[in-house]
Amino acid sequence: MRDHFEVRDGDAAGRIGRLSVPRADVTVETPALMPVVNPNIRTISPGRIESAFGAEILITNSYIVHSTDDLRERALEEGLHDLLGFDGAIVTDSGSFQLAEYGDIDVTTREILEFQRDIGADVGTPVDVPTPPDVSRERAERELATTERALSDAESVDTGEMLVNAPVQGSTYPELREAAGRNAYATDLDVFPVGAVVPLMNSYRYADMIDIVAGAKRGLGRDAPVHLFGAGHPMMFALAVAAGCDLFDSAAYAIYARDDRYLTVRGTEHLEDLAYLPCSCAVCTAHDPDDLRACPDEERERLLAEHNLHVSFAEIRRVKQAIRSGNLLELVESRARSHPAMLDGYRALLDHAEQLEREDPASKGSFFYLSGESARRPEVHRHHERVTRLDPGGTVLLTEGGMPSGDVYDAAWRVVPPFGPFPRALSETYPLTGEVPARTDRHAREAAATGVARLVEANPETSFVLAHDDWPASALSRVPDRVETELVHSGR
Amino acid sequence: MRDHFEVRDGDAAGRIGRLSVPRADVTVETPALMPVVNPNIRTISPGRIESAFGAEILITNSYIVHSTDDLRERALEEGLHDLLGFDGAIVTDSGSFQLAEYGDIDVTTREILEFQRDIGADVGTPVDVPTPPDVSRERAERELATTERALSDAESVDTGEMLVNAPVQGSTYPELREAAGRNAYATDLDVFPVGAVVPLMNSYRYADMIDIVAGAKRGLGRDAPVHLFGAGHPMMFALAVAAGCDLFDSAAYAIYARDDRYLTVRGTEHLEDLAYLPCSCAVCTAHDPDDLRACPDEERERLLAEHNLHVSFAEIRRVKQAIRSGNLLELVESRARSHPAMLDGYRALLDHAEQLEREDPASKGSFFYLSGESARRPEVHRHHERVTRLDPGGTVLLTEGGMPSGDVYDAAWRVVPPFGPFPRALSETYPLTGEVPARTDRHAREAAATGVARLVEANPETSFVLAHDDWPASALSRVPDRVETELVHSGR
Ligand SMILES: [Mg+2]
Ligand SMILES: [Mg+2]
Ligand SMILES: [Zn+2]
Ligand SMILES: [Zn+2]
Repeated sequence: MRDHFEVRDGDAAGRIGRLSVPRADVTVETPALMPVVNPNIRTISPGRIESAFGAEILITNSYIVHSTDDLRERALEEGLHDLLGFDGAIVTDSGSFQLAEYGDIDVTTREILEFQRDIGADVGTPVDVPTPPDVSRERAERELATTERALSDAESVDTGEMLVNAPVQGSTYPELREAAGRNAYATDLDVFPVGAVVPLMNSYRYADMIDIVAGAKRGLGRDAPVHLFGAGHPMMFALAVAAGCDLFDSAAYAIYARDDRYLTVRGTEHLEDLAYLPCSCAVCTAHDPDDLRACPDEERERLLAEHNLHVSFAEIRRVKQAIRSGNLLELVESRARSHPAMLDGYRALLDHAEQLEREDPASKGSFFYLSGESARRPEVHRHHERVTRLDPGGTVLLTEGGMPSGDVYDAAWRVVPPFGPFPRALSETYPLTGEVPARTDRHAREAAATGVARLVEANPETSFVLAHDDWPASALSRVPDRVETELVHSGR
Repeated sequence: MRDHFEVRDGDAAGRIGRLSVPRADVTVETPALMPVVNPNIRTISPGRIESAFGAEILITNSYIVHSTDDLRERALEEGLHDLLGFDGAIVTDSGSFQLAEYGDIDVTTREILEFQRDIGADVGTPVDVPTPPDVSRERAERELATTERALSDAESVDTGEMLVNAPVQGSTYPELREAAGRNAYATDLDVFPVGAVVPLMNSYRYADMIDIVAGAKRGLGRDAPVHLFGAGHPMMFALAVAAGCDLFDSAAYAIYARDDRYLTVRGTEHLEDLAYLPCSCAVCTAHDPDDLRACPDEERERLLAEHNLHVSFAEIRRVKQAIRSGNLLELVESRARSHPAMLDGYRALLDHAEQLEREDPASKGSFFYLSGESARRPEVHRHHERVTRLDPGGTVLLTEGGMPSGDVYDAAWRVVPPFGPFPRALSETYPLTGEVPARTDRHAREAAATGVARLVEANPETSFVLAHDDWPASALSRVPDRVETELVHSGR
């Protein structure tokens, strides 16, 4: 039991949590965005990131501090909080990225963790191996073994009150990620970064990202705070949170700004392509694109970085509110329409509907049917499970609203796509209170037919008549043969 | 030819236009949002709406001014611009709303237009009859005749430089809306409000709203600026613009604020339900929901109204940028996931794909396939038309990527869902440069099969072989029998 992380509220596999960071004496509410602060370059000062944007936690690279003489001396003398001018929690990365990029670094896990402890980091990181995507399974396993030795080394370091990251690697092998998650969770380390996803993000492989996160989550306990390391684009926060990620880090806000790139929840724009600033933040309300283009470089970079942070923090608030309102998957539905690769990511998430269903609360705000994908949501699976435990008895009419001619029934149940059949007694329960479009679709009717099939198969003694409003063959073919079906317009 | 409205850029039936308002000596860029200013209540002053939010045009009710003694005197003396403190264009409504609500008003079209002229309105409005939805056809026709007499009366008034609205009514009868649009367009009046849609908005009947707008648009010329009268929720701006609306008016920003309601592009929230402020505006960055709840009523109302305006104007900028980037329908895809009724609205819009296609530019940014609905976009229809004008000749392989065994072909064309077949020479043209998800769906493959069928039917002398990557029966059944089909994995 990890008593420094408490899950307060959930939706799909997403949750609102409280990460206690004892060394900083702060509690960080998750999902949280950690702006990356380069100790050498300050586009926006950490103090302003705290006061104007409400950041409770940031991340910086201890390897850069360690390998820069004057930074190292000052950090050891003043401590990281004074060096950066930030009162919240400070996470330090270890140099693993540099290891992956340059093949070699000159610190061990023990050395860097002791250094992180000595400069006052609140969360430290061992030297793991960020294995890239698509390598051979052999290499992924070999490097994972090295990462796992680093975790074991980290456990033996006296880190005091500092929390310690336990990175989960395994390249693009979900089952290795699961094993890595299980191993990391078994250590006494504290926070669980899913590593080496940056190359996937850069090539828009959101479906692969989801499969990896789902793998890692299967290995980790529910009380493990999960950091999607290197993921900082607001377009994918909702999706990644729905898959169970709690922490994000954004270097993008500053790096993109340097390059005149402008973040939105629907993708990235280049300032040169903008005729309007499609955002409600203070920067975008007070300027137009020509104003920004006319600014001196440094001022423009700062303004774009501020916009990028505003958009990113607002999306985190939006995601948290969606969890509280119980409509996180509705937000994901919207974000899935940002890019075809985001749709792939959402479709991949729905492949894990049963895994999500185990964490998803049984009752939430209101289910909205928003696309063919909605028919595959965990709530629909759960309802189909639920109907197998019900027995209407006798001769039962299942109807979309119309009444067939003749016959007397022992019970009449409503059928609503995508859920399928349910007794009146359940009609005021989630998700059956949900809203569906008047213009329904095949996916919803096919899912409803699956619900009918589950009910019928679970009740071999009961007779069923289905009054449907013009279901397509692809739906009717799912209905067991022994069900009498009749097309009766429901007058909807 | 209406030379006071110039269409500069377009996407679907949406456009960026310039409405010249000679009396105010301003040019308003459309799509534009006109905040409604109640001459008696100023939640936010018109001057601030202009300076802080960039409003170029607002709307106020001349009937209220006319029927309030001191307002009437001051308006006649100082003029509306000084009375309100606003330099942009001022539109005046006529009291038709009051007519509809209370059954009687004490001004005629001539009187109210002369009054509007005399107080310095820039766009005036006759007294039309806003027929509600779902009335009998007889009533709709009778009231439309009254509206048309009002337009005719308006033409005979000396309105000077003032532009005049020509409302388009017809209840929920699209063909009456079309006739009304044709009649209005034939007058010498200037701006075309589609009226009486508020009851549809209030009951989330976005599909009916789209059918009505599509009807009105069929009657109006392309150079007619269209105002969706009473529509001010930012959730539906993108959809309504894609259907061809140019002007919106928002009373919601203020009315909702009075009621502690908080606008978002995904719907309306109640302040009491918010744990976070899901927005990047200055109000939502500087406050949290508890701060707002603790404010005195008047201050809270003002802050919520400012937030509501920020969100609304940002969405208008987002819509305009989407038109410039050629991805307005991608924005609509996202907004369609706000509510099942918005999905109905988008599905209704796609029912008019051929009407949209006539205005949609042939080449735009990049087509994104974002849902099963994307398969019905106008660009897909256009490509299917285009292939009927192509003749590959001889024996032709149509392939998703795989090569069937044996055989030699005179030509090999790519097949990409949802478009269908195309020759290499077109592969760098819009929309074939579009991005599609790796996880494709039935809708895309069925649309591709339709494209194959159109090509095959247009070329009875040519032999075709189709190498498809596991198309479902619902797609293969659309492929003409004489096409030899083979399942060849494309290795995608
Ligand atoms: Mg410890
Ligand atoms: Mg005139
Ligand atoms: Zn901004
Ligand atoms: Zn706001």
